[in-house]
Amino acid sequence: MAAPTGDIGLIGLAVMGQNLILNMNDKGFTVVAYNRTTSKVDHFLANEAKGTKIQGAHSIQELAAKLKRPRKIVLLVKAGSAVDDFIAQLEPYLEKGDIIIDGGNSHYPDTVRRVASLEAKGLLFVGSGVSGGEEGARYGPSLMPGGSAAAWPAIKEIFEKTSAQVGPDPCADWMGESGSGHYVKMVHNGIEYGDMQLIAEAYDILKRGLNLSEDEIADIFDTWNKGVLDSFLIEITTNVLRFKDDDGVPLVTKILDKAGQKGTGKWTAVNALDAGMPVTLIGEAVFARCLSAIKDERVRASKVIAGPQKEPFRGDKKQFIDDLEQALYASKIISYTQGFMLMRESAKEFGWHLNFAGIARIWRGGCIIKSVFLGDITSAYTKNPELESLLFDDFFNKAVHKAQPGWRRVIAQAVLWGIPTPAFSTALAFFDGYRSEVVPANILQGQRDYFGAHTFRVLPGKENAKLVLGQDIHINWTGRGGNVSASTYLA
Amino acid sequence: MAAPTGDIGLIGLAVMGQNLILNMNDKGFTVVAYNRTTSKVDHFLANEAKGTKIQGAHSIQELAAKLKRPRKIVLLVKAGSAVDDFIAQLEPYLEKGDIIIDGGNSHYPDTVRRVASLEAKGLLFVGSGVSGGEEGARYGPSLMPGGSAAAWPAIKEIFEKTSAQVGPDPCADWMGESGSGHYVKMVHNGIEYGDMQLIAEAYDILKRGLNLSEDEIADIFDTWNKGVLDSFLIEITTNVLRFKDDDGVPLVTKILDKAGQKGTGKWTAVNALDAGMPVTLIGEAVFARCLSAIKDERVRASKVIAGPQKEPFRGDKKQFIDDLEQALYASKIISYTQGFMLMRESAKEFGWHLNFAGIARIWRGGCIIKSVFLGDITSAYTKNPELESLLFDDFFNKAVHKAQPGWRRVIAQAVLWGIPTPAFSTALAFFDGYRSEVVPANILQGQRDYFGAHTFRVLPGKENAKLVLGQDIHINWTGRGGNVSASTYLA
Repeated sequence: MAAPTGDIGLIGLAVMGQNLILNMNDKGFTVVAYNRTTSKVDHFLANEAKGTKIQGAHSIQELAAKLKRPRKIVLLVKAGSAVDDFIAQLEPYLEKGDIIIDGGNSHYPDTVRRVASLEAKGLLFVGSGVSGGEEGARYGPSLMPGGSAAAWPAIKEIFEKTSAQVGPDPCADWMGESGSGHYVKMVHNGIEYGDMQLIAEAYDILKRGLNLSEDEIADIFDTWNKGVLDSFLIEITTNVLRFKDDDGVPLVTKILDKAGQKGTGKWTAVNALDAGMPVTLIGEAVFARCLSAIKDERVRASKVIAGPQKEPFRGDKKQFIDDLEQALYASKIISYTQGFMLMRESAKEFGWHLNFAGIARIWRGGCIIKSVFLGDITSAYTKNPELESLLFDDFFNKAVHKAQPGWRRVIAQAVLWGIPTPAFSTALAFFDGYRSEVVPANILQGQRDYFGAHTFRVLPGKENAKLVLGQDIHINWTGRGGNVSASTYLA
Repeated sequence: MAAPTGDIGLIGLAVMGQNLILNMNDKGFTVVAYNRTTSKVDHFLANEAKGTKIQGAHSIQELAAKLKRPRKIVLLVKAGSAVDDFIAQLEPYLEKGDIIIDGGNSHYPDTVRRVASLEAKGLLFVGSGVSGGEEGARYGPSLMPGGSAAAWPAIKEIFEKTSAQVGPDPCADWMGESGSGHYVKMVHNGIEYGDMQLIAEAYDILKRGLNLSEDEIADIFDTWNKGVLDSFLIEITTNVLRFKDDDGVPLVTKILDKAGQKGTGKWTAVNALDAGMPVTLIGEAVFARCLSAIKDERVRASKVIAGPQKEPFRGDKKQFIDDLEQALYASKIISYTQGFMLMRESAKEFGWHLNFAGIARIWRGGCIIKSVFLGDITSAYTKNPELESLLFDDFFNKAVHKAQPGWRRVIAQAVLWGIPTPAFSTALAFFDGYRSEVVPANILQGQRDYFGAHTFRVLPGKENAKLVLGQDIHINWTGRGGNVSASTYLA
C-alpha cells in the first residue's frame, strides 16, 4: 500500500465543509474528504473538487489510512451528539498524537469535556471557532483554535494559510487551553449580536427620528464606513439598504421584523450572568431579538399604547448625525470592553491563558465583526497584554471622552422621541456605572440586611469600632427581632 | 402506642424552620420538629418552643410515627443534595399518599424531577416558595406551593392559616403543576431584584442629581409610600435612609456599595434568555449588582474616566420629583409586565396552569415585594384571567400613559447628568419596542441573510410573486455566490 499523502482530513460535506476543503486545497494542502452519506463524497469529487488534489474516503478507516501522521481530522458536523459519534467512530483508527479538530459551533463546555477525555487516551483534541460563514470558509475564515496545546505546532501552518489574511497577518492564532477556542468564538458571536443591534438602532433613529429614506441612510453609513466605524457590518448594511425589490422599493422595508437566532448570543449572555460580569449590551441585544420575535403581540400593543407626540426635529441635522456616529462608536467600545472583561474573568476562572491581542488580531479579518476598530484593540492589548479594561487604554479612553456628549444627546433625544435604544442606553448606563466610584448598591445592601439579615460591609474610610472593615455586619434596624444573620433559605 | 397527634412535621431547625414551626403552632397545629443534629431539637423544645404543643423527634422514624396520615413533612434545609438526602431518608417510613413539602429555595428543575420521581412511587411532593424571610416565617409568609395536585386539599388549611393575611385573603394559594411553586418563587425573587434596583436608581438621582440628603430623600419616599408606590420595600428604604450611626451620620452612607446575590435573580434572567422572553429589567438589575461587585475596578475607572460637566439643576424640583415617582412607577409596571409574560410563556412551555390572579394576590402580603400595586395586578387578572399583558389592562394602560412624559424627562435628564439608570432605561426601551408595530429587526434579518444566507420572511402586506408570505426567503444580495441557504454551522 502506498504511503498516505493526505495532509488533513475533513468530515462533513455541507457547504461549510466543502468550502473549507477547497480553500485548504487552494493553499497547497492535500485534503481527504469524508461524509456519512458517501454518495456526497463522490458527487463532491466529480463536481466542485474536480481537477484538484482533493481525495475522497468512503469509510472512516479509509480516511485514517490516507492521512499522514500525526493525523489531523476536522469535524464540520452539527454541534452536539454528532460530534461525539464521529469521535467514537474515529478513535479505533487513530494513534497516539493524532489530532481531532472540531470546527463546528460546539458549546465550550462540551469542548472542555472532549479535550479532557481524548487527552486521557493519548489523542489530541482542538475545538476551533470558525467564523465568516460560507464565504469565509471558502476564501479565508477567522480561525480560533484552542485545546490540546501539543496540536498547535502540527496544525499551525494549515490554519494560518487557510485563514483570512490582514496585511501580513493570518487570522488564525492559538487561543489557549481546553475549551477556550469555542469559548472565544461564543463571545465573538455575542459581540456580533451587539454590533448588529447597534446598527439597527442607528437605522431606526435615522428612519423614524429624522424620517430619512433607506438611500439617505445608506449614504450616511457609507460615510461612517470611511471613519472609526469602518467595518464589514456597516458595509453590508449599506448594501442591504440600497438593494431594491423589482418595484424599486428598498427590499429591507419588506422584510419581516422578527429576528432569528441560533443561540450563541444567548450562550454569551447566560455565561455573563453565571460569571457575574455585567455584559449588558449583548444581553440587551439578545433580548431585543426576543422582543422582535413576539411580533403579533407588538402589533396588538401598538393599537392600544401610544407613544409621545412626535415633535419634528428642530436641531442641526448634520450635528445630530455626527452625534449618532459617536453614539454608535462609544456603545461599540463599551460592548467590546464588556466582552473582553468577560473573557478576562473566564480565563481566570478556568485557568486559561487567553491571548487577548491575538484574539483581537484574528477578528480583524475573515469574520462578521471584522473592522478597523479591532486593529485598535489589537494595538491596545499588544501595548499592554495585562490591560484591565479597554477604557483604560489611551486610545479608547480618548475616544469615549470625545464621543460622550453626542452619545448622551442622541439617547436623550431618542428617549423623548419614543424610539427604543436598548443597546445604546445600556452601554451608557454601564459607562456611567463603571466610572462611578460609588454606586447606589449601598441601598440594596441596606435593604437586604433590613429584611433578610444578609449583612453588609463598611465603606473603606468610614469604619469605626462598630463598623469594622472587611467584616460582615448586621444591624438591628428596627429595634425588634434579634441580631441573627440570615439563614441560607432567604432570597 | 398512642395514636399519632402531629398535624405536620418539619425538618431543619435553622431560624426559618423554627419560626415557621412557632407560626404553625400559634395557628393551632401540632408540629413535630426534627433536625439532623438532634441536640438542636432538644434545645428548641426547651427554649423557643417551651410551653407550646410542639413535639420533637430524634429520628426520621420517630418523626413519621408521630404524624397523622396522610403525613405532611416540610423540609426547610439547604437547597440541593440535602433535599434529596432527606427525601431518601424519609421514603422508607412513608406510605402512599403521604406528602413531602420542600419549603427551601430549590431551583424549579429539581422540583420538577422530584415531583415526577415521588409520584411514581405513590408519594406526593410539593415544592413551595416561602417568602418573607425570618419575620415572614414567624408571623405569616407568602406561600407558593405547587406540585402534586392531590396534596393541596390536605395542606390547604395549614398553608392558608400559616400564611400572611391581607384583609380576608390568605397569602397562600395553589400555583399549579410540578415545579411551578418554586418557579413562581424564582420569578418573585427576580422581580424583587428589579424593585430594589429601581429604588436604588431613584435614590441615586435624588442624591447625585438633586444633591438631597438621606433625610430629604426619606421624606420623599414617605410621600411616595402613600401613593401608587405604597410597598414594603419603599417603607423599609425610608427606615434604612433615616437610620443614623452613633455619630449622627446616616448609616447607609457608610455601607459598602457592593451588592451580594444568592442567585435566584440570576436564575430568572437565565430562564428568560432560555425562554426567549425579553425580561430586560430583571436582567439589568442582576447585571447592576455584578457591576457594583467589581468595586476596585470601578474605583480605578473613576480616576481616569470623567463624566459630563455637572450643570446645577435649573428646572422645577417639585415637578422633577413627581416625574421621578412616575418613572419608578412606570418602570415597575414594565418589570411586572415582563415577569408575568415570562410566567405565561413558561406555563405554555411546561403545560402548567398557572393561576395569575392567585399569584398576584398571595404576593400582596408576607413577602418582600408586597405592595398595593399587587392588588391592582390581582384585579387585572381577576377581571381577565386570559390577560395577555398587564399593559393591555385598562388600569395599567392608563397608568403608563400618564407616567410616560415624566418617565422620559427623568431618563433624559439622568443621561445628561451622567447618572446611570440601567433599569429605568431598559424599562422605557422595552416599552417603546413593545408598542412598536415595526422594530428595526428587518435590518438584522437583512444582514443575516446577506452574510450567512439565514433567510428572512416578508412583512405581511408586502408580499409579491418573489416574496411569498410565510416562506423562508433568501436573496442573492451580491450577485456573487449561490442562492444556497445557510448550513447549520453559522452563527
